[in-house]
Amino acid sequence: MPATLRDVAERAAVSVRTVSNVVSGYEHVSKRMRAKVLAAIEELDYRANPVARTLRTGRTGLLGLVVPEITVPYFSELARDVIDAAAEYGYRVMIDQTGHDHDRERQLLMGDDRTMLFDGMLFSPLVTKAELLDMHGSTKMPLVLLGEHEFDGRYDHVAIDNVAAAMDAVAHLAEIGRERIAAIGSQPQEEYSTPLQRFAGYTKALDTAGLVTHPEFAITAEHYSREAGYEATRALLALSPLPDAIFCFSDLLAIGAMRAVFDAGLDVPGDIAVIGIDDVDEGRFARPSLSTVSLDTPFIAREAVRRIATRIDEPETPAEEVIAPHRLVARESTVANHP
Amino acid sequence: MPATLRDVAERAAVSVRTVSNVVSGYEHVSKRMRAKVLAAIEELDYRANPVARTLRTGRTGLLGLVVPEITVPYFSELARDVIDAAAEYGYRVMIDQTGHDHDRERQLLMGDDRTMLFDGMLFSPLVTKAELLDMHGSTKMPLVLLGEHEFDGRYDHVAIDNVAAAMDAVAHLAEIGRERIAAIGSQPQEEYSTPLQRFAGYTKALDTAGLVTHPEFAITAEHYSREAGYEATRALLALSPLPDAIFCFSDLLAIGAMRAVFDAGLDVPGDIAVIGIDDVDEGRFARPSLSTVSLDTPFIAREAVRRIATRIDEPETPAEEVIAPHRLVARESTVANHP
Repeated sequence: MPATLRDVAERAAVSVRTVSNVVSGYEHVSKRMRAKVLAAIEELDYRANPVARTLRTGRTGLLGLVVPEITVPYFSELARDVIDAAAEYGYRVMIDQTGHDHDRERQLLMGDDRTMLFDGMLFSPLVTKAELLDMHGSTKMPLVLLGEHEFDGRYDHVAIDNVAAAMDAVAHLAEIGRERIAAIGSQPQEEYSTPLQRFAGYTKALDTAGLVTHPEFAITAEHYSREAGYEATRALLALSPLPDAIFCFSDLLAIGAMRAVFDAGLDVPGDIAVIGIDDVDEGRFARPSLSTVSLDTPFIAREAVRRIATRIDEPETPAEEVIAPHRLVARESTVANHP
Repeated sequence: MPATLRDVAERAAVSVRTVSNVVSGYEHVSKRMRAKVLAAIEELDYRANPVARTLRTGRTGLLGLVVPEITVPYFSELARDVIDAAAEYGYRVMIDQTGHDHDRERQLLMGDDRTMLFDGMLFSPLVTKAELLDMHGSTKMPLVLLGEHEFDGRYDHVAIDNVAAAMDAVAHLAEIGRERIAAIGSQPQEEYSTPLQRFAGYTKALDTAGLVTHPEFAITAEHYSREAGYEATRALLALSPLPDAIFCFSDLLAIGAMRAVFDAGLDVPGDIAVIGIDDVDEGRFARPSLSTVSLDTPFIAREAVRRIATRIDEPETPAEEVIAPHRLVARESTVANHP
């Protein structure tokens, strides 16, 4: 059992009240008493320092980073960049994954006794319904929203321009001469705003290119996983005529899509070009290497940490929306002999 | 600024000492005083509950999971499994990455004021030199070592049998008729014990199969990354005669190796068979799909959490070594038409 206040008091032969005064940073404790208590804390390895500091300052030096799934490379790469950026501000990062669980997201936004360990929270939500953010309001915990949701003016928000990113991907497919362009992502009628925006970019780019929208070419994926991309592509491959290109709402979906095309005996990009969004490391080493829209995660991480650090120090600072840059990266999955 | 003890005291019109007594769980505070303080804490949203509980119980409900790099899929998949397993014991997990920094590892093992927030630590170290573990001894923090290092009898340890895992991989290459089998991993003379063990398994399996060991076929990779696998393979491809198989000490190395073979105009497995260790999701969707030695990360995570939970409750329980199972998974990168 770790040492408790009571153990320390017994060892130091002082009252529990005195120990409590010392660890909570109360000033009016005699030097002799304080020395006795500190010696006992040392001997018993009583873990009070960070806790005592927290009580004194109201701060823990911890930031929470909440992502849906740490095994999705986009999020593990974002976590790496956030950890690096936070270190420059003297913060440590605790990563929490919601596992696509809306209740867990709600709990974290409303604050539970664990989130109270955070000085601030960087939150990459599945959903940002106004009601949820209303709930968060009462917790007063500094919050920065990450990802690609609409800015509601109340919370700092580091996002990408999803509509434009999706348009760039689809415009690239049109430029290389593809005419039957399918899309794989979450159902646009759901309450997730990222896929809504990406779907809007997809249809807008088809319009701009003068291409027909085929409703059967928009396929739902349950998760942004390789498996889901594989399954969605199998559904597309059952259609006639086949699509000649697939725009996937994430790189992982695109990795699964490519494998499904090959397993059907077809070629990427010969028969079907494939493009994703994210630019995860995996895509560069895939065969063919994956064309994508690269999101600047180091920029997102740096800006998010800058905003949360500012907000922790100045809670009344107005909320900012920061739009991270993105750029098209054409690789072999759309342009076969691309270097 | 978050509320401090002093703010709470002012609001409740009591002394700081009284607030400190209440939040530190000191019992002899009058009901009326306690009620006033709790009301002020509520009004000011003073974040004291988890902290106060920590002071009372000496526990935070947090486990630290320390890994070299969260973007390495093996570690993000392990983190996912540890988070799941810890939840069943009522623990939350804080992920910390050392970034291959030996000093950072040393700091964490010796305990700094942030690791004091953990009730226990699951540590996947680069190095487990006895001196480091000696240092940790004085911190008394419950510790479980993860990964593939030698058991030193003092710390719980969930590992795989590295020598056997490497032997299985290389024996498979020999069985499919390969005779010039190269290895890509860290330098065996370094102080890292995982590559030492894997290298031992490699040479042992070559011996068993009656194959010659070519010293130039053992290539060092700086990190277990796709890039490092790619570069190491380019070095192998400059040799004459070429190897006809490559055993990589991790799946990421193998992904990079496959891409380098293709970029040289050669075929996997036709010209060079490739096998890794880990069985990360990425390997199943690679083209060709990657043969590997599958490590049972859910098992590793479950056992590690079981051990740390036991040790937190019973610090004197003897250290256990748990060996996680592994199994060969033959896929297309060694057996071309494998289903």
